Amino acid sequence: MKLYDYPGAPNPRRVKIFAAEKNINLELVNCDMSKREHKTPEFLKKNPSGKIPVLELDDGRCISESVAICRYLESIKPEPNLFGKDPFELAFVESRNRHIELELWTQIGTSWVNGPIVGSLGIFNQIPDAKLASDKNVNLFYKRLDREFSSSKFVAGDRYTIADITLMSAIDFASDLVDLKPDEKLHNLYRWHLEVSSRPSANN
Amino acid sequence: MKLYDYPGAPNPRRVKIFAAEKNINLELVNCDMSKREHKTPEFLKKNPSGKIPVLELDDGRCISESVAICRYLESIKPEPNLFGKDPFELAFVESRNRHIELELWTQIGTSWVNGPIVGSLGIFNQIPDAKLASDKNVNLFYKRLDREFSSSKFVAGDRYTIADITLMSAIDFASDLVDLKPDEKLHNLYRWHLEVSSRPSANN
Repeated sequence: MKLYDYPGAPNPRRVKIFAAEKNINLELVNCDMSKREHKTPEFLKKNPSGKIPVLELDDGRCISESVAICRYLESIKPEPNLFGKDPFELAFVESRNRHIELELWTQIGTSWVNGPIVGSLGIFNQIPDAKLASDKNVNLFYKRLDREFSSSKFVAGDRYTIADITLMSAIDFASDLVDLKPDEKLHNLYRWHLEVSSRPSANN
Repeated sequence: MKLYDYPGAPNPRRVKIFAAEKNINLELVNCDMSKREHKTPEFLKKNPSGKIPVLELDDGRCISESVAICRYLESIKPEPNLFGKDPFELAFVESRNRHIELELWTQIGTSWVNGPIVGSLGIFNQIPDAKLASDKNVNLFYKRLDREFSSSKFVAGDRYTIADITLMSAIDFASDLVDLKPDEKLHNLYRWHLEVSSRPSANN
């Protein structure tokens, strides 16, 4: 299986961490976003959304969207389980993963596209007020997470799941490239971040 | 099982349609968003995100997020299958569902929160430029869907899935409440919309 990847991009990283946790080997194919290789007609056949990651199976079929790719990997190699083991846990992990995606990741994305690095490319009509609002929302969500980690070891309860991979990838991207590192007073959030970052898979 | 609902809200509607397709009976509990009942301390215990829908099980445990609730219902009543039957289809349906959510639904949401109805409530600091951008993105995505429906009967191939429920709910909300009805020239999109709207579940 091939994974279309671009070093530093947070969504492919999620899949690489997930695969590493499962000890699944993926052949990485560099899709150079700086050269707009994700927008070529050939690539749009693999993913009409023109985004990475894309997983290409050995028979040529393609799967786009990081969580969909991870679910495929979970289906073909169920252990270690990262999506939930019974109907309630399956739903709970998905719920927590979606809280992170819909309430944090989307806000980080808004700050990113309206921030200086994307601005320097001159390809996007930026809205400064949108960045001000999303920066604020990101910091509010960090505080919520800190409260939640006072009583929860991981994002979705007492064990490591895909929701932790989603959150770690979001925070690392926000800290390194969007100037949205969590306030150092958020000790519970940092306790969790240190724990998940110490797993070998996090080196992806 | 109780579903915390608010008539007209698009996300609870997705769950109600999904449950109707499965012939699962849910006790509807009105959570009056106009009175901010979704932000009370009591409700935040059910869903820390302060949003509906929430499914409350008979033992009191709660699941938030529409897709997570639907996945729970799929787990406890697998037929008719709406999420995919094998590893590839499971991933493909999720991929398509996420394309609709992340590229259309989020844009409709931006147009909604920056539009006149929310504006009249005076509870949100609106950004007119953000609405202009999202209105444009919604219409571009409608055109993409129209192209895709020229060769695909449903959102995720040749059968009805959760991705159709997501898209129908998004378009109906956008048409009725956000003034973003698809251009009538998009005949393939309207062909699909007529078909999914004619299912009895769509009356939810």
